[in-house]
Amino acid sequence: MKLYNWSIAPNPKRVRMYLAEKGIEVEREEAAEPGKPVLKPDYLKKFSHRRVPLLELDDGTTIGEAMAICRYFETLHPDPPLMGIDAIDNAIVEMWERISEAEGMFVVAEVFRNSKRSFAGRALPGYVEPIEQIPELVERGKLRMDQYYVKINGQLAGRDFITGARFTVADITAFCVIEFARFCELDIPETCTEVARWFDAVAARPSAKA
Amino acid sequence: MKLYNWSIAPNPKRVRMYLAEKGIEVEREEAAEPGKPVLKPDYLKKFSHRRVPLLELDDGTTIGEAMAICRYFETLHPDPPLMGIDAIDNAIVEMWERISEAEGMFVVAEVFRNSKRSFAGRALPGYVEPIEQIPELVERGKLRMDQYYVKINGQLAGRDFITGARFTVADITAFCVIEFARFCELDIPETCTEVARWFDAVAARPSAKA
Repeated sequence: MKLYNWSIAPNPKRVRMYLAEKGIEVEREEAAEPGKPVLKPDYLKKFSHRRVPLLELDDGTTIGEAMAICRYFETLHPDPPLMGIDAIDNAIVEMWERISEAEGMFVVAEVFRNSKRSFAGRALPGYVEPIEQIPELVERGKLRMDQYYVKINGQLAGRDFITGARFTVADITAFCVIEFARFCELDIPETCTEVARWFDAVAARPSAKA
Repeated sequence: MKLYNWSIAPNPKRVRMYLAEKGIEVEREEAAEPGKPVLKPDYLKKFSHRRVPLLELDDGTTIGEAMAICRYFETLHPDPPLMGIDAIDNAIVEMWERISEAEGMFVVAEVFRNSKRSFAGRALPGYVEPIEQIPELVERGKLRMDQYYVKINGQLAGRDFITGARFTVADITAFCVIEFARFCELDIPETCTEVARWFDAVAARPSAKA
């Protein structure tokens, strides 16, 4: 089994944090060119998924998408549970994880990839054809990110973690979103004190360095 | 328990198809204004999620996001399994379902909402602030949709359904994507014969009319 990784990218970090919380060790291989913001040609040739992370099983099966990889391990190693403990919890964790992916991760990525010169023609990951940058998406992304922060702040009021008393994948994705956002100078607004409190608590977990 | 629905929208259809495949009946309420492409003010006031579908449980818990609602029912009613049967299958179903959401559903919605005059200022669902239309996203969306069709066509070669011999939520989301795409005149390319064969087979299932 091998996890194809890109050490500086936010989506592989979701899987690395998950594995660290579970105490699972998986062999890793860096899929990106050293020192360049591109995936290796051999990697792109071998895997039509054209993204990271990617988990390759010993029988050759490949699993892409960060949460699908986590789902694989969650089924095999249910403790500690990171994707819910019963019907309602499973649903609430999935809801908030997906909100952080769609309204957080995709938004920060949109700001990043539409503003950096090194991503010209690659404004979205995984495509074969060039995807040109659209500068309007940068300003729109800042507005969307503000609303994401406000939404997460409201959800965190009265809760240790995003879905309640337990740390879950909803916290992992939100943490990776906000770490990436801060890298892109989309900092936590001063009014979002719940987010700041929660972010510091998650950053103190050993898995945050994974 | 009540499912807030919008009968003409693609995301509530994912849940309706799922429930029909399971044989589960849930009380429904239409959340949209009759004959208008907007959610009712009372609905938006009551639920900060500001989207459909939304499942409201008897204890007041609300679950948004189509696949999170399906996950709730999958835990309570595992048969027939629609989200996988073992670790690898769970992961592969989740991978392809998420690909169809991110590279299919969000793309068709982008083309639709950035081109229709009735969605001016509402280019994305669920936001409080106006989200202005960006015309470049329409052309880009057509290119992305072409690549989505090619990807699904490749995956379907040699398989009855997207992840293999069994019908799953990966088929449900892909079917709702393509039904919505056809409504937006983003038809299945003639070269994508596997998609056409599969689409006709899924359309013949009673759940496709849900």
